[in-house]
Amino acid sequence: MPRSTPVRDAAVPAAAQPPATREQILAVAARLFSERGYANTTLRQIAQQSGIQAGSIYYHFDGKDTIAACVLDEGIAAVTDAVHRRLAALPADADMRTRLGAAVEGHLWGMLHRGEFTAAHIRIYRYVSDAARARHRSIRSAYTRLWDELLQQAVDAGLLRSDIPVPMVRQFLVGALNWPVDWYDPRRGGFEQLAAQITALVLDGLTTRPGRRGLVS
Amino acid sequence: MPRSTPVRDAAVPAAAQPPATREQILAVAARLFSERGYANTTLRQIAQQSGIQAGSIYYHFDGKDTIAACVLDEGIAAVTDAVHRRLAALPADADMRTRLGAAVEGHLWGMLHRGEFTAAHIRIYRYVSDAARARHRSIRSAYTRLWDELLQQAVDAGLLRSDIPVPMVRQFLVGALNWPVDWYDPRRGGFEQLAAQITALVLDGLTTRPGRRGLVS
Repeated sequence: MPRSTPVRDAAVPAAAQPPATREQILAVAARLFSERGYANTTLRQIAQQSGIQAGSIYYHFDGKDTIAACVLDEGIAAVTDAVHRRLAALPADADMRTRLGAAVEGHLWGMLHRGEFTAAHIRIYRYVSDAARARHRSIRSAYTRLWDELLQQAVDAGLLRSDIPVPMVRQFLVGALNWPVDWYDPRRGGFEQLAAQITALVLDGLTTRPGRRGLVS
Repeated sequence: MPRSTPVRDAAVPAAAQPPATREQILAVAARLFSERGYANTTLRQIAQQSGIQAGSIYYHFDGKDTIAACVLDEGIAAVTDAVHRRLAALPADADMRTRLGAAVEGHLWGMLHRGEFTAAHIRIYRYVSDAARARHRSIRSAYTRLWDELLQQAVDAGLLRSDIPVPMVRQFLVGALNWPVDWYDPRRGGFEQLAAQITALVLDGLTTRPGRRGLVS
């Protein structure tokens, strides 16, 4: 991008104050949903903290349900994109353990670096309307399939234990990887260290193992 | 208890309808907090669903903050009690792996069998007042210490990996064990199977391991 100031969407009308973009409104909504809970956040508060009139929200969204669905989508998109990027960056002949480790680190990266959306996802999912969940379902299912396929490949490659069904392993794994967004404190160690520790814990378990790879593989 | 009907607290006044006990009110509050979110649940709703007048709540609690602190306490008490009971039931010479497995299963048991309180704990913790969290702090810290001591014993016994600090292992472990309350469906398999699978996943990891114990140790 050749310009040092952000390029605005041409569809957004000019004004004395630059109007909040769709993305800015979603980020504000995600933060408020996380901080106050879903039911306790109003369209008026979202508008106010986005620096726009309440009615201007409708320029971008047809209501709180739609904002909720978009926040859920952004949360899953954050982890989906990060996992895809990490996998795509691997050499073509990367072994299955490296691929699985890259996916684990990708999920953690997406969780922590888009924390406003991923934390909001975890905290509001059960409180939004059925309509918002339905709107969000396809992107959520696609992410579930991504993990199920990867884990099945790891079973087929002899890397992953085969005595526990893949969907159960996936539920355990994704749950365990979601939790750090609640407690990770970058002042106590960088992301790379956290990712290496969590990856070691999920792949190899808490107990000692003869011949185990070190934390940094 | 020699009588077949529940013995009521003598301090509770007799009435045409048996008045809701403190425990019943807490269970109703926990369910409403979980279902609707903390901010969206009123004292009036808690009273109504407990079958009492709104003002009668104050017979047991001095406000919503106190109810919140008690619900948080009950959630942690559920897992604390279950872990202590499982550990106490072991033979005196049980090895460290057996002890750690018993503690893991105890936490899962407490989470799932007192799900109204444990799920409420997870969902409202960040939304209650600072005062409610402060009231709840000591019981929460005691549970953290219980795990840190157990995990340190496992490190000392050579069972647990020593390359990751115990508090980090504990945060990962408890987070991973909290998640099933969100997705466990008893119709897809009993508690014993779930506990064996989760215990295997946290202790031994997702990957295959030569000479690993079977799921049921």
